[in-house]
Amino acid sequence: MSQIIFDCGISLDGFFAGDNRSPSNPMGGVSGDIHKWMFQQKAFWKHLNMAGGEEDSADGKLIEAVFAKTGAYIMGKRMFEEGEAVWPEDLFKADVYVLTQEKRAPWIQKGSTTFYFINDGIHSALAKAKQSANGKAVRIQGGANTIQQFLNAGLIDEFFIHVAPVFLGSGIRLFEGIDKHKFDLTIVDVISSKLTTHLRYKMTKR
Amino acid sequence: MSQIIFDCGISLDGFFAGDNRSPSNPMGGVSGDIHKWMFQQKAFWKHLNMAGGEEDSADGKLIEAVFAKTGAYIMGKRMFEEGEAVWPEDLFKADVYVLTQEKRAPWIQKGSTTFYFINDGIHSALAKAKQSANGKAVRIQGGANTIQQFLNAGLIDEFFIHVAPVFLGSGIRLFEGIDKHKFDLTIVDVISSKLTTHLRYKMTKR
Repeated sequence: MSQIIFDCGISLDGFFAGDNRSPSNPMGGVSGDIHKWMFQQKAFWKHLNMAGGEEDSADGKLIEAVFAKTGAYIMGKRMFEEGEAVWPEDLFKADVYVLTQEKRAPWIQKGSTTFYFINDGIHSALAKAKQSANGKAVRIQGGANTIQQFLNAGLIDEFFIHVAPVFLGSGIRLFEGIDKHKFDLTIVDVISSKLTTHLRYKMTKR
Repeated sequence: MSQIIFDCGISLDGFFAGDNRSPSNPMGGVSGDIHKWMFQQKAFWKHLNMAGGEEDSADGKLIEAVFAKTGAYIMGKRMFEEGEAVWPEDLFKADVYVLTQEKRAPWIQKGSTTFYFINDGIHSALAKAKQSANGKAVRIQGGANTIQQFLNAGLIDEFFIHVAPVFLGSGIRLFEGIDKHKFDLTIVDVISSKLTTHLRYKMTKR
């Protein structure tokens, strides 16, 4: 049974992305604010097959852990469109299911990343992603709206947020319109770091 | 020099209070969700001069600490109006400055709590609260809008939030429209507990 997870950074005021995001302005330009902790870690750049990062600390182990446990990804169309322009080839090293109205043949990249374009909703995407994951976790990669859809459908088992000590003031919130009657939450991990605070929660369906 | 602080509970989706708050519906009815950790602590009820609570744990020490370090309070009119209906006499044991348009004589309670009604803005309230605090901290008690006014005026030195593992879905957010250019934030404390996560930040004016 695949665990359904998400794992993402937010600002202290709860923003997942800034205003005016588009393929030419990924995440509304706030990735440096929210992901500073990640960009410092060699583990992050290594996963991108790129040189980079200055540290190899506990934060890096968390980055490695989520990549290692994940067997398939699901993302929204807007995140995909932003990433298509800038992500290096074979970033995910797994099957990625993109929720979109566009009909498009699978995009098989060199390595082990294939993007599949799903036109019939989150449950269909999840069924396919579970098959791909083969027992490993299915990670709902984002954006915020896609994560909210999975939360409000009661489909998330566990999530990990990384709260950066920064205010953004406006943008797209991760937790917007969450159905409070769906789950009970339990705190699983609270891990302090200099540039972010890692908080892991388990969700139990009511 | 008095430190200017705030210290409050929020839900995981960032809400300080629920919808439709009023004196007959304090905090929009969500206090039990956000403050569950606090209500379990004997230290909290002891401060209210009431019997109550089941635990005397590390969470209780944090409650004692903020009361001990605070020398004066500032709050908004709506929080005061809600509290006036339900708070026990002498809850604050210090001078409390209420931001309001209402002209009203000080309300001197039995014990050491006096409410002063301030009609000329946050800077005036702060100057008076600092005098009362006599070197101890001035705590901006709330509500969210009052805290936002002090944040955006660049007046907060440090704050402590207690993030409950609960979604509310809607209500009044603590961090709404925060001016991101005013400060740099530093993580000071990350303290894990079963019913909440305590996060303390220091603000440095840019």
